[in-house]
Amino acid sequence: MTRTVVASARREIVIGFDEPFCVIGERINPTGRKKLAAEMVAGDFSTVEKDVLEQVAAGATMLDVNAGVTAVDPNLSEPPLLVRTIELVQSLTDLPISIDSSVTSAIIAALEVAKGRPLVNSVTGELEKLEAILPIVKKYNVPVVAISNDETGISEDPDVRFAVAKKIVEHAADYGIKPHDIVVDPLVMPIGAMGTAGRQVFTLVRRLREELGVNTTCGASNISFGLPHRHGINAAFLPMAIASGMTSAIMNPCRPQEMEAVRGANVLMGNDPSCITWIRSYRDAAPTAGGHTPAAPVDAGAASGGRRRGGREGRRGTA
Amino acid sequence: MTRTVVASARREIVIGFDEPFCVIGERINPTGRKKLAAEMVAGDFSTVEKDVLEQVAAGATMLDVNAGVTAVDPNLSEPPLLVRTIELVQSLTDLPISIDSSVTSAIIAALEVAKGRPLVNSVTGELEKLEAILPIVKKYNVPVVAISNDETGISEDPDVRFAVAKKIVEHAADYGIKPHDIVVDPLVMPIGAMGTAGRQVFTLVRRLREELGVNTTCGASNISFGLPHRHGINAAFLPMAIASGMTSAIMNPCRPQEMEAVRGANVLMGNDPSCITWIRSYRDAAPTAGGHTPAAPVDAGAASGGRRRGGREGRRGTA
Repeated sequence: MTRTVVASARREIVIGFDEPFCVIGERINPTGRKKLAAEMVAGDFSTVEKDVLEQVAAGATMLDVNAGVTAVDPNLSEPPLLVRTIELVQSLTDLPISIDSSVTSAIIAALEVAKGRPLVNSVTGELEKLEAILPIVKKYNVPVVAISNDETGISEDPDVRFAVAKKIVEHAADYGIKPHDIVVDPLVMPIGAMGTAGRQVFTLVRRLREELGVNTTCGASNISFGLPHRHGINAAFLPMAIASGMTSAIMNPCRPQEMEAVRGANVLMGNDPSCITWIRSYRDAAPTAGGHTPAAPVDAGAASGGRRRGGREGRRGTA
Repeated sequence: MTRTVVASARREIVIGFDEPFCVIGERINPTGRKKLAAEMVAGDFSTVEKDVLEQVAAGATMLDVNAGVTAVDPNLSEPPLLVRTIELVQSLTDLPISIDSSVTSAIIAALEVAKGRPLVNSVTGELEKLEAILPIVKKYNVPVVAISNDETGISEDPDVRFAVAKKIVEHAADYGIKPHDIVVDPLVMPIGAMGTAGRQVFTLVRRLREELGVNTTCGASNISFGLPHRHGINAAFLPMAIASGMTSAIMNPCRPQEMEAVRGANVLMGNDPSCITWIRSYRDAAPTAGGHTPAAPVDAGAASGGRRRGGREGRRGTA
């Protein structure tokens, strides 16, 4: 049984095949959010605070924390900014955190102040990166996200990405790090640009689980990049990835459609005992809630309100 | 390659692993619809007509046609009623049909008037049923839905249901019917009553595909029976079943949430080339469309409008 234990000072969560899907809130991240980056540099953490509270309210399992603002020397500027952000997050919530940085000194500084057992996000298959991050992961006894790219970049060949993941797991073993403390990100390509991206991920996740015994994660919204109504694609992708064995994702928990898909998938995997979370979340849902009526070729008037039971139910007695 | 060919007089569709998911519209079915049953007995087919047009507009791939009204002698009353219904359906649409009856004489009468290559729905693993239906299926050279229950009823053990399906495929082979002309329904249990129902189906569908080489179907809405906000459960279930290899379902195409999930899954399986159907259907979708904001524990105000790209996208350059 692969159980990745992550914890804050007061709360422990487990990422695993028989656990509810782990939703890692992605919002605290100034990459690509210029306004947030400027605020953080100026010492204004009001947006970060809002993002913490909203993600907690929306049902995130843990929070990713990134302070990667563009700077002349990230090695100098990022550690104190990440530390300050983490201390703020920890003061606002007891959800476990994921320390998200490409700067090694920032990760070390963050591990010094992070309470409990945070997730380190991330290491890649690049040798330099492995040698920088794995000793730290071992020293602090924390789990790590392993992204399946290396010096050659991100391969479009899923077999190569699997091989990179395997290499990372093997390197980690040399440091005494167990597979259950490695959460592999097989890398999700945009389906609009690569029609095989979905099947690739589903196959990879299954192999990573069956052959390497690791938990998995991904930046879920990548899959829909460039397409209209991205939430609809994301909301189909997440259950498919979960059915294939994916156990966590870095995603926006403030999106109702995606979170509903995750909660539904938890029910269907048998990981929402007695459907308690589902029933509590949706017992008052309006019968017609959810779904977007397509522009074409559907007649909008076609959404009729029939309520009879499905064909198989109705026919069981006569079959 | 398993290809189940179904056709009307003018349109052929293929059920298969590399085809868009086959949505078999379930609405034309008086079972459990007392009002519709009474209308059909009285010769009023206005609701049937409406159900045909709505399902076509909603994007059904084919239409299930059932005329199983309660009667003193179904062997006498059902054949003419089913024939009349099929003739009406065929006059309104060129979608292929599924002939849905538990009355053998009605199936024969329907096959005499059905144009193209309809699907027969259904045979079970009961010996009497196999011996009644398989010769007809062979004679008319049509595909058939095989439901995995037999004289002992519906087993809660998925291995037993697999064995029943295998038995049907073997019996069919004795009649010269190929696996590609058998669409197995592994039977979907309500997840609210049986927490393993989802995993059972996903595993069964995979085995049926890999070990028997057959296409699969199910009464999709069964899965959510008894739960609140059933569309949300159905909309998570369908992509999970599709990722596991399911190739068709008997379902209500007039439900936007479920159809969106199916269209999303088609994109993600690589079965919507260039995402054309998705883009055409949802290019005008409002950014906030879809998803139901849960009653609890989520703060309804939390659905913020951030639009930055996912964490992995933003980080690729720095990883």
